[in-house]
Amino acid sequence: MPALIIQLALYFLFRMNTTAYIEKQQEKETTRIETFSDGVFCIAVTLLSLEIGVDVKNSATNSSLFHALLEKWPIYFAYIISFINVLLAWMGHHSLFKNLRGTDNYVMISNGILLMLVALVPFPTKTLGLFLLSGALKMAVVFYTFYFVLISLAFRLLWHAASRKRELLVHHLTKADIKAITRNENIGLICNSIVTLSAFINPWVALGLSFVMWMYWIFFG
Amino acid sequence: MPALIIQLALYFLFRMNTTAYIEKQQEKETTRIETFSDGVFCIAVTLLSLEIGVDVKNSATNSSLFHALLEKWPIYFAYIISFINVLLAWMGHHSLFKNLRGTDNYVMISNGILLMLVALVPFPTKTLGLFLLSGALKMAVVFYTFYFVLISLAFRLLWHAASRKRELLVHHLTKADIKAITRNENIGLICNSIVTLSAFINPWVALGLSFVMWMYWIFFG
Amino acid sequence: MPALIIQLALYFLFRMNTTAYIEKQQEKETTRIETFSDGVFCIAVTLLSLEIGVDVKNSATNSSLFHALLEKWPIYFAYIISFINVLLAWMGHHSLFKNLRGTDNYVMISNGILLMLVALVPFPTKTLGLFLLSGALKMAVVFYTFYFVLISLAFRLLWHAASRKRELLVHHLTKADIKAITRNENIGLICNSIVTLSAFINPWVALGLSFVMWMYWIFFG
Amino acid sequence: MPALIIQLALYFLFRMNTTAYIEKQQEKETTRIETFSDGVFCIAVTLLSLEIGVDVKNSATNSSLFHALLEKWPIYFAYIISFINVLLAWMGHHSLFKNLRGTDNYVMISNGILLMLVALVPFPTKTLGLFLLSGALKMAVVFYTFYFVLISLAFRLLWHAASRKRELLVHHLTKADIKAITRNENIGLICNSIVTLSAFINPWVALGLSFVMWMYWIFFG
Repeated sequence: MPALIIQLALYFLFRMNTTAYIEKQQEKETTRIETFSDGVFCIAVTLLSLEIGVDVKNSATNSSLFHALLEKWPIYFAYIISFINVLLAWMGHHSLFKNLRGTDNYVMISNGILLMLVALVPFPTKTLGLFLLSGALKMAVVFYTFYFVLISLAFRLLWHAASRKRELLVHHLTKADIKAITRNENIGLICNSIVTLSAFINPWVALGLSFVMWMYWIFFG
Repeated sequence: MPALIIQLALYFLFRMNTTAYIEKQQEKETTRIETFSDGVFCIAVTLLSLEIGVDVKNSATNSSLFHALLEKWPIYFAYIISFINVLLAWMGHHSLFKNLRGTDNYVMISNGILLMLVALVPFPTKTLGLFLLSGALKMAVVFYTFYFVLISLAFRLLWHAASRKRELLVHHLTKADIKAITRNENIGLICNSIVTLSAFINPWVALGLSFVMWMYWIFFG
Repeated sequence: MPALIIQLALYFLFRMNTTAYIEKQQEKETTRIETFSDGVFCIAVTLLSLEIGVDVKNSATNSSLFHALLEKWPIYFAYIISFINVLLAWMGHHSLFKNLRGTDNYVMISNGILLMLVALVPFPTKTLGLFLLSGALKMAVVFYTFYFVLISLAFRLLWHAASRKRELLVHHLTKADIKAITRNENIGLICNSIVTLSAFINPWVALGLSFVMWMYWIFFG
Repeated sequence: MPALIIQLALYFLFRMNTTAYIEKQQEKETTRIETFSDGVFCIAVTLLSLEIGVDVKNSATNSSLFHALLEKWPIYFAYIISFINVLLAWMGHHSLFKNLRGTDNYVMISNGILLMLVALVPFPTKTLGLFLLSGALKMAVVFYTFYFVLISLAFRLLWHAASRKRELLVHHLTKADIKAITRNENIGLICNSIVTLSAFINPWVALGLSFVMWMYWIFFG
């Protein structure tokens, strides 16, 4: 009798270790891609700050520096909204990869496209900051918001790549879960498209809509 | 008798593995956020160096290069104090996260605000370095020191977010511990505010006060 | 009888833990180098974006910004192909290191040379983007494609360093596996050389050949 | 009899897990500092590439681009030697931290000083590259080589901080080991000082001496 208990217990312990080992091996692939992706998100978000600076003037006074710092507000504004956008994209990437168990070439490529777009976020950000108070405001906002439509598309593509094969997803994911994620990605894509379209009518309305979307994602997403 | 020992021992071993597994899962969330935050601190601190350089002049001589390198001392000065400030902020972030077991949206957002400010530290640093020997010295120091008031505020907000729910904190934290951390964060915020206020009177006194604060934190903090 | 089972099972469990520990120690060295290398790849790929930006003009209109953004296409083009090249190099580095169990000085140095080249990819990228529409197109493409011949050479050197000692490779690698990897590295080097040579004849043909090579690697590699 | 074996074996298994846990906790501190340090090394080494680029000229021809690329050789030269220096410093940091079990404030601060210097390596590198062919060659080489004397000093300080308390070092380190490491750090400091002094006499001799030192470290270090 005790022998049986021991055998069962040891068998169980042994299996636990073995499956842990196998799962660890399988997990290794997605972990490395996730770490690399995290790195790109992390560097992209920190590089946003690189272009911000006040030029030195020999005749600088306290008051002129104060006004020079204040006048830069469109740059700060663009920095802040891009920082939030990249952080939200990072969280989205994270929650998408939580459902992944393995990868294949299609997943790698669509993830690569997403990272390529994320790494270039400083470019639309700089453009928005520089042209926010110029006559090219509308174009700058259209470009900026359209850029995040592209990022939504890359997310949608990545999820399509991952969800098309059951063996790439974690075991406990039900069909309903998969459907819910697909719907979420679609909604994100549609919302970003609406923001871009509204920018053609009124760029400030578009920026306001983005803000409403964030609040929704943060508090109910 | 031996069977009982075995059963108990195996039960214990099994529990250990299981709780280790559950705690590992829970821990995963904060670990990823911590790693991302570490990345932002790390990149921000290294990016500080990007703006430092001596312009090439065709007629350069050994002596003119020597003086050009020496004349840059306000830039080095700003680099060094920002490096120390970001390192101390990183240590503070680390010791704060050691108390965290889980996260929620509020923690994520307040951590995001903190990272947004940390990533932009090169901006006040550059401003301080460029205007330290100009007529805008006072404004530059006020801006620089005020920036670190904002960072203290973000830390205070992050700790408020974490400490408001008992289930987000690690088990072994007592009420007295929580109170002590809250007091510490408050003291940091007050100290940084005093430094900023003193900068309005005398910018060099403000920089001296910062130095005293560091020494205190490093040797008694 | 039960005692024997227990002894065997415990012996097995113990060995598993011990060998896991020893393998972990051995693995530590390559893991750290791999992580460092991943970091360089990750930063290099994100830094590619740094040089992209539209200059501000006071008289900016929506239409002038639109055309300024469109006119930048050679820069986007160079960004995209370098991003893909670095990602493919990262995957290649990853699959090469999967075969490594230990390192020595020769492996460290050849890996260092590879990283030195990868970190400098933004330089040929910028050159390609700036001169793609200039009279120096041929030279820009020759330089760009030759740069990736150098990277292939560094990969070949790294594999030579790793494969020359059996104890640096993982146990389950057969002689046939080693030969196959050597052949693969040689093919990569030859293909990149052919692309560079073809750039002397026609730069656009060279860029087209690169594209065909990618498709092959992605879908059959 | 079997019960005894089981008890012993289970006790052993249990202890293994427990000590592994405790050591893991202790290790956590140094691991985090090491990871952060690795990040700074990794970013610093990749940022070296940022300043390298060829300016666009409208009238660019294949031959003018070819010569513009060739004329940049002092920049490449400075890039390569700094890359090697930072990689060697990273390896040195790695082998020093392998001996550390815990940290205290003194270790943290001396490590911080080391990282502050490493993060700023792009500055002396840029200076060396820009002035290598100018009349300020001697000053540029003195500055560059002196910068690595500072880094050696920071290493010496870090080792002093770590080796002054036995409880900060790993258990298996003998007194002879500690002495050997101290001697190694001293030799590194002296060698770098000799290189700097020789730069006052002849800058090219100093660069040659650096090269000999590397070869020694790589093949016998």
